Amino acid sequence: MQFTINRQAFIKALNNVNRAISSRTAMPILTNIKMILTDTGLTLTGSDTDISIETTIPVSDDIAKLVVTEVGGITLPATFFSNIVKRLPGEEVTLANTSGLEAKITSGSAEFDIHGQDVNNYPHLPEVDIQNNLILPASTLIEVIGQTVIAVSKQLSQPILTGVHFILASGNLTAVATDRHRLAQRTLAFGTSDVNADIIIPGASLLQLQGMLEEVETVEIRVASNQVIFQLGPNTIFYSRLLEGNYPDASRLIPTEKRTTITINARELLQTIDRAALLSHEGRSNVIQFMVSDAKSMISSNSPEVGKIEEEIFAAETAGDELTISFNPDYMRDALKSFGDEQIQIGFKTALDPFTLVPTNNETNFIQLITPVRTY
Amino acid sequence: MQFTINRQAFIKALNNVNRAISSRTAMPILTNIKMILTDTGLTLTGSDTDISIETTIPVSDDIAKLVVTEVGGITLPATFFSNIVKRLPGEEVTLANTSGLEAKITSGSAEFDIHGQDVNNYPHLPEVDIQNNLILPASTLIEVIGQTVIAVSKQLSQPILTGVHFILASGNLTAVATDRHRLAQRTLAFGTSDVNADIIIPGASLLQLQGMLEEVETVEIRVASNQVIFQLGPNTIFYSRLLEGNYPDASRLIPTEKRTTITINARELLQTIDRAALLSHEGRSNVIQFMVSDAKSMISSNSPEVGKIEEEIFAAETAGDELTISFNPDYMRDALKSFGDEQIQIGFKTALDPFTLVPTNNETNFIQLITPVRTY
Repeated sequence: MQFTINRQAFIKALNNVNRAISSRTAMPILTNIKMILTDTGLTLTGSDTDISIETTIPVSDDIAKLVVTEVGGITLPATFFSNIVKRLPGEEVTLANTSGLEAKITSGSAEFDIHGQDVNNYPHLPEVDIQNNLILPASTLIEVIGQTVIAVSKQLSQPILTGVHFILASGNLTAVATDRHRLAQRTLAFGTSDVNADIIIPGASLLQLQGMLEEVETVEIRVASNQVIFQLGPNTIFYSRLLEGNYPDASRLIPTEKRTTITINARELLQTIDRAALLSHEGRSNVIQFMVSDAKSMISSNSPEVGKIEEEIFAAETAGDELTISFNPDYMRDALKSFGDEQIQIGFKTALDPFTLVPTNNETNFIQLITPVRTY
Repeated sequence: MQFTINRQAFIKALNNVNRAISSRTAMPILTNIKMILTDTGLTLTGSDTDISIETTIPVSDDIAKLVVTEVGGITLPATFFSNIVKRLPGEEVTLANTSGLEAKITSGSAEFDIHGQDVNNYPHLPEVDIQNNLILPASTLIEVIGQTVIAVSKQLSQPILTGVHFILASGNLTAVATDRHRLAQRTLAFGTSDVNADIIIPGASLLQLQGMLEEVETVEIRVASNQVIFQLGPNTIFYSRLLEGNYPDASRLIPTEKRTTITINARELLQTIDRAALLSHEGRSNVIQFMVSDAKSMISSNSPEVGKIEEEIFAAETAGDELTISFNPDYMRDALKSFGDEQIQIGFKTALDPFTLVPTNNETNFIQLITPVRTY
């Protein structure tokens, strides 16, 4: 195996594949990056078994300027090899494994010899039997992930809740996540009505995918029985395993009645919550109070051992009953961040019921729900 | 006590004083910031007993726009209080302690009440009996610190070596640091011949001072028996305790004979050492080799379990005997960084003797010395 390639283009491909590689893995060979060189291109693969990423640099790529001297394959320690490539002096890098599992890396006046492992020992990527596929703008999927992944559970004791539930039916995509304390749900119409799927994608996979989506315009999503595949541009494929089990029915958690509502800019309210959280984080219980009334609405927090904060907030509109409710400010911050600078309506039933946040310009397609804390 | 002040100017002063405040301290009150308000200004003090920083915001400051309503004093938890001030909504902030040790902080619509401690319980700053003083451009002191502090020992078992030794005599300042594996020495003429001092300043103090020096033009250094005081502009004073004991005589460690020399750009050699260190860090012994010869000079490293690297380096000039020497690349990287983009001469006696790095344009006033590693 021997090839020469533009170093910056190679670094970009290595960075993508490295997203799937973890230093903590049960299979030592998975700390390596797999390289397969054919007459048509160089394919790099990284995997931690949950996520696998495969990217191909074709010989036709004008920036990468890949020159194939001898086809073949090797696996090399991912972090060490990537750090070497990043620090090499030349504009190009040549990689050759002339004798068995030694790779010689040459660039400018520098020459590294490092030990690899046999490419035949690298596990095969899952064979998938595609059941459905769907093409979305990458920016749409970035938005849906950002709005829902915040609510996945960090508790491995409830594995199904560590994923986001995606339902494709009747031309609509619904994504929902909940950790039983809060819930985030986003719906959008994608216009093709013959795609049906019901899958749970691990939150950790979506976070890695999110970063890679920024480099492409559209993404093709293919669903198999226990895998989902995201095709990113012509040359990169992102595989994620799916979580198995039945996701709880989220729709019945969302209250339908609103006895108190307040309309406010999400970013301004976030700044007030950030200040109140400074105090609640220092205290023993991480709780803040929201008082909503026509006369004056307030955010406050009181920790006897630390001190207290009170801040009036200026709503565009309030309606309904007076109410004081207590909640975890961190859930509120995550929810508010997902609305950016938008105007939102917060709707309450009672101080003991979950309350909802929706954008005023799109009330039915995006909702954040937070369960209050009972205080005595 | 009550005052109103421009919030950004207050944040800047808090940031300065916070450099002296550690969350790990034997005296809980030292996690607080001390504030004393008089008719002429607000003085903030922070201390971890090794370092103390005092900064005064005068009422005459046009940017701070300090308005004194009622003189007084309080101490408040430094990190918590600073985080609150940073997040407040208004352009100004008002602080009042109306009832005992409660501080009320108001800005825009936000109002915090936090608990303080009595200013009378805060320890007094050391009274110092000034023996000597000296004025230097801040940029000169930044340079001297940067060039020497790299070589201080991190081992608390040899406390005297955790400082930089400053000798002021006959109009010259010499700063020297060594951890017994390497040594850095810088000399400069300051032109006033009646100042004499011989002090050891903790490296940790110098690192904190370095950041603050960037904000001023000149610095006045005052030496007392067990303290050194840096006056930074008219309003800020930085106190550091001195290390007690006799600093080893460094001059006799510096070899006078050079049997092999190589002249090279420091930044280019640093890049080659960085690459070799990638490999030596993965291996068991963190050692690289330098071969100097008229025909071809090379940096190399070989770790049987990982691989090897070889890189030819292109010197402006080599002279003397052929030589191969082994050393810790991390010491070499620190030393090379202190020369920036300058041309340097590296001088060797034998493969077992310490070798020196000096700038070719100033050979006598700045020297880095590294002890080689014996390899068998």
